[in-house]
Amino acid sequence: MKNIYIIGVGLIGGSLAIDIKKNNPETVIHGISRKQTTLDEALSLNLIDKKATLDDIDKADLVIISIPVDATVKMLPTILDKIHDSGLVVDAGSTKLDICKVVEDHPKRRNFLAMHPIAGTEHSGPSAAMSGLFKGKTNIVCEVEKTAFKLQEKALKLFADIGMRMRYMNPEAHDKHIAYMSHLSHISSFMLGKTVIDKEKNERDIFDMAGSGFASTVRLAKSSPEMWTPIFKQNKENVIETLEEYIDNLKLFKELMEKDDFEAVYNEMKNTNHIKQILNGIA
Amino acid sequence: MKNIYIIGVGLIGGSLAIDIKKNNPETVIHGISRKQTTLDEALSLNLIDKKATLDDIDKADLVIISIPVDATVKMLPTILDKIHDSGLVVDAGSTKLDICKVVEDHPKRRNFLAMHPIAGTEHSGPSAAMSGLFKGKTNIVCEVEKTAFKLQEKALKLFADIGMRMRYMNPEAHDKHIAYMSHLSHISSFMLGKTVIDKEKNERDIFDMAGSGFASTVRLAKSSPEMWTPIFKQNKENVIETLEEYIDNLKLFKELMEKDDFEAVYNEMKNTNHIKQILNGIA
Repeated sequence: MKNIYIIGVGLIGGSLAIDIKKNNPETVIHGISRKQTTLDEALSLNLIDKKATLDDIDKADLVIISIPVDATVKMLPTILDKIHDSGLVVDAGSTKLDICKVVEDHPKRRNFLAMHPIAGTEHSGPSAAMSGLFKGKTNIVCEVEKTAFKLQEKALKLFADIGMRMRYMNPEAHDKHIAYMSHLSHISSFMLGKTVIDKEKNERDIFDMAGSGFASTVRLAKSSPEMWTPIFKQNKENVIETLEEYIDNLKLFKELMEKDDFEAVYNEMKNTNHIKQILNGIA
Repeated sequence: MKNIYIIGVGLIGGSLAIDIKKNNPETVIHGISRKQTTLDEALSLNLIDKKATLDDIDKADLVIISIPVDATVKMLPTILDKIHDSGLVVDAGSTKLDICKVVEDHPKRRNFLAMHPIAGTEHSGPSAAMSGLFKGKTNIVCEVEKTAFKLQEKALKLFADIGMRMRYMNPEAHDKHIAYMSHLSHISSFMLGKTVIDKEKNERDIFDMAGSGFASTVRLAKSSPEMWTPIFKQNKENVIETLEEYIDNLKLFKELMEKDDFEAVYNEMKNTNHIKQILNGIA
């Protein structure tokens, strides 16, 4: 893959650029962004070799789309129109159903591979890009059978080489499970942050009491609303279901406390403790 | 302080032992525990110099109580009975009101200092003890005026020397604010873990989808129910209040999604983003 075009050179696109370039020094990484300043920043940080525009995409061997998922749905058909026959377009979005749907009947569907590299931090923009972000992480690949075999092979090697393990899933299952494993955490964290800020807004000294536990639980509340709003919109039904179950569990915990049933409170926590084993070595 | 007795040689007691011994090599650290195996483990890990029992406390210059808060309330009066006139007892509990109350009329109240060193990890027991745990962290000191001046001075120097900054607060304010800054995070994390485990219990493969965001948000769900149940019990009213506000905020978020008001969803997140600045350099 001589010419790789990355649309969106922030945390995900920029980090992919770093690791792919390291493994493939002969590859030229072209950056595309809505904002000229973002592109300049990516260039000055050496994330990309060259600046480009959407008009250049016909020269791409690989296009990686790492922008908010609403923009992906909007732009993907046009991008796919432009790719040449032996080129491939992949996306890195946190939802998969709407993205797969918008190109299901596209004449170049076989030149598209839907994926979700599950990696990130709470930071965003080119300066958030980092080397090694994807090492040991999972890359969910959807509808792999709809992509031309030779193209998927090349792309999956590229992602395996930067340390990712592939998991194959249909878009419906991806969106359902990722609501639990990722989207809900973000809302729980944002609303925890809100609850505390609302209460303590006039007492800034109180934040001296924040320990590493609070910091860890509220970390995702620093995430980009630009990126997360369209994710929640596209995955609305699944996310609402997780929220309902989460709220029910919190209510139950509160009711047990109100009833002074601290044996049950203890058991609620004890029964969840084995998350330790479940997550061991995973995240 | 020649002889320091630490009751409870787990994460907090053990970590205090390591740092205090490092700064004061001449001090003898005596460990006391309900369980002989815990004490043996602490000794073999070099957290303590000697094993001791509650009967030895009359020889203590300083007693540090770092056990579950219900056990502290139960044992504190007796421990204080035993301390000699120039000795000091401090506790490290995550609640302060009940602990301060149980000794408010104790004849040796001036030999007690109530504190809450805000530090920890999700792990527990002697093997969880670590050097440097308290560096740069906040130590909340309650009712400092009720402790003999010479004794508080010595103790506060000890804690300042291991890197803590002191904040002074009354027990009511401590318990109210710590419910927001710490206790609520633990419940939000436990119930997040429960929601996901309940849903995905038959699909262990799904936990491959766990990213660092989920791991961070659910980290506190690994905490010890033995330690946390009595905290929630003692701080029941405050914790229930935080839970109600948290549940209301989650419900609001869900309702905005149901109404397709994603501009408001965006604003909810945007308005919470400045938690970044608030926490900067704090936690």
